[in-house]
Amino acid sequence: MRDGLQSAGQMVETDDKVRFLNALSELGFAKIEVTSFVSPKAVPLLADAEAVLAQITRHPNVDYVALIPNVRGLERALATDLDEVNVVMSVSEAHNLANMRMTCDESFAQFAEVVKCAKDLRVNGTLATAFGCPFVGAIAPSQVRDRVQRFLDIGIQSITIADTVGVATPHEVYSLCSIIRERYPSLPITLHLHNTRGLGITNAYAGIAAGIDRFDASLGGIGGCPYAPGATGNVCTEDLLHSLVQDGFECAVDLDGLIQVANELQTLLGQHFPGLVKDSGPRTRLHPLPASVAERMQRSD
Amino acid sequence: MRDGLQSAGQMVETDDKVRFLNALSELGFAKIEVTSFVSPKAVPLLADAEAVLAQITRHPNVDYVALIPNVRGLERALATDLDEVNVVMSVSEAHNLANMRMTCDESFAQFAEVVKCAKDLRVNGTLATAFGCPFVGAIAPSQVRDRVQRFLDIGIQSITIADTVGVATPHEVYSLCSIIRERYPSLPITLHLHNTRGLGITNAYAGIAAGIDRFDASLGGIGGCPYAPGATGNVCTEDLLHSLVQDGFECAVDLDGLIQVANELQTLLGQHFPGLVKDSGPRTRLHPLPASVAERMQRSD
Repeated sequence: MRDGLQSAGQMVETDDKVRFLNALSELGFAKIEVTSFVSPKAVPLLADAEAVLAQITRHPNVDYVALIPNVRGLERALATDLDEVNVVMSVSEAHNLANMRMTCDESFAQFAEVVKCAKDLRVNGTLATAFGCPFVGAIAPSQVRDRVQRFLDIGIQSITIADTVGVATPHEVYSLCSIIRERYPSLPITLHLHNTRGLGITNAYAGIAAGIDRFDASLGGIGGCPYAPGATGNVCTEDLLHSLVQDGFECAVDLDGLIQVANELQTLLGQHFPGLVKDSGPRTRLHPLPASVAERMQRSD
Repeated sequence: MRDGLQSAGQMVETDDKVRFLNALSELGFAKIEVTSFVSPKAVPLLADAEAVLAQITRHPNVDYVALIPNVRGLERALATDLDEVNVVMSVSEAHNLANMRMTCDESFAQFAEVVKCAKDLRVNGTLATAFGCPFVGAIAPSQVRDRVQRFLDIGIQSITIADTVGVATPHEVYSLCSIIRERYPSLPITLHLHNTRGLGITNAYAGIAAGIDRFDASLGGIGGCPYAPGATGNVCTEDLLHSLVQDGFECAVDLDGLIQVANELQTLLGQHFPGLVKDSGPRTRLHPLPASVAERMQRSD
């Protein structure tokens, strides 16, 4: 609801956000990124962060998260009821300067301050452009590994590796996730994928093969990144779940309910979202046999 | 050009087909399915099969293929210049009756006659709904294996395993392809995938893991199946190639040229095709650094 709505390109009323967050809370998710405490001037769509968090009905099994850019965002977050805050910086110096208007060193200093002031609130650190930057291209896995270590050094408790602009290939995802997973066996690692070049689900499977079991995804596949040229939506939540559930993975989420909520959000926004399963239906949905075929099959029995 | 255009839902002029087939022939493909010798009444869009085959400029490295439904189609095919014909039947009895208006036994009898009359023309056999049928659901791998054996028994030289309605999951693709690959180590096997539920590329990777190295795909991801409720386009040629090339596989196809042809076909048909790389650009395409960022990075050098 944060990454997706932020880039949907149109205002959404606070009441509607609350209604959708409440619906999602009932579907079995472990974590929902609710909103962002960025400057209301920079992102007017998320200016109602406090109101949304005050009005949603919390489900005991769901962790509610908000993105914060800095200590000022943390102060706003601390005045609400949250389980976790998420800080984001780019592995690429150029992308961090363009996106966050800070050098990477300045981001680390800011986030060290955030962790110090966060009290009992958990802090997750996201490394954007971990698989490539739209300005400088390839990112060395060793650079990502070093940034992870610096996150841990300042007290961050879990990390997200993000393919912000959708450039990762399956073998690269497997390789980088394996490097980080092996170096930090018990660190909670989330993979954040965009489907910009059609590889969202393939890359999720590559991450699973490397031992990753937490994924960011967006309802209907909406989203993008206002500061990442050419980026499109996150991997679609219901498409990824449909595949995993049908492929034998244990997933606690109610897929039919999720498809319904995706269709409702699509109707509200009046856009056609890129997700496919909401259009095709789950693969378990059978079609009636044409009458002539049914008759012929009966005759041959 | 056959599976894709057949379901594009609008007429395409013979001259345009010839122009696109000639453009595709120059891009490095090993095989192009040009058209289909089905009844012109059933599929008016492909009524110009002979004219198209007479007018295209053949590239020596490309095998030109046409789909044929029966011996009547073969006779038309034999009067043209082709390298291979493709016969199609469903593993599912119900889908074969609905789609081909024949029982599976009748299809085998028809195709045995086709092979006998084909002279030097190679015959490829496609098994549709190999991973599931929209009417009856799951298909047992043993049933696919038996149908492959019957294809070989009647003299068919290569096979295609088709996920006609896009229901296969990655583990199922890996499992079925491994079974067929291990049983017939030197048999040419093509995997024909649809992206109906977002798994086209993921399933292609699963096929590669099982030893498959031939894939059907359609330009821009256009296509579907007029007799398969809920089906959408084939896996998108340029998206699949982009991933494989960027992931280190050797592929002889000119990706930039392919993206250009996909965009031209999209313009001709006035539809937005589902392929993603033609919109986002290959991942190697970098964006200019914002001036303020470039300045700041220079200062800190």
